[in-house]
Amino acid sequence: MTEDDYIITKTTTKTRLLFARNLRRAREARGISQEMLAELAGLHRTYVGSVERGERNISIDNIERLAKALGLEPENLLRRDADC
Amino acid sequence: MTEDDYIITKTTTKTRLLFARNLRRAREARGISQEMLAELAGLHRTYVGSVERGERNISIDNIERLAKALGLEPENLLRRDADC
Repeated sequence: MTEDDYIITKTTTKTRLLFARNLRRAREARGISQEMLAELAGLHRTYVGSVERGERNISIDNIERLAKALGLEPENLLRRDADC
Repeated sequence: MTEDDYIITKTTTKTRLLFARNLRRAREARGISQEMLAELAGLHRTYVGSVERGERNISIDNIERLAKALGLEPENLLRRDADC
């Protein structure tokens, strides 16, 4: 997936895209679906999908839920050099 | 400032408190007020105060604004061992 695949709007920030990319990478590395991740994190499947496309201005509480579901620390999902 | 100074509610998560602590530490290390930080980040002074008390479920876009205003990467503000 390249950055071109993301829906870029004027409100999409660099950090959202970084988070989106790291989240997808970490999820795929674990071989789980968006649906499974959503269930593990107590979030809705379509919400996780939109976060992975950088469409959502996700909150710190939901960043924590997703990180926990993936067995990561929240900071890992914001790293430039993330190797989740 | 100790963790006792934070307003803890059932919706206050660990990550919020980590962010709150790192934000305050980074701001104070730069010798700037909440008001000045708010101005640099384009946010309201009372909002920055409530974020520093862990009261707000801050969004990733606002995490980016605050990090940028402090000359940091967003991940720095979520680090456990942050030395901002």
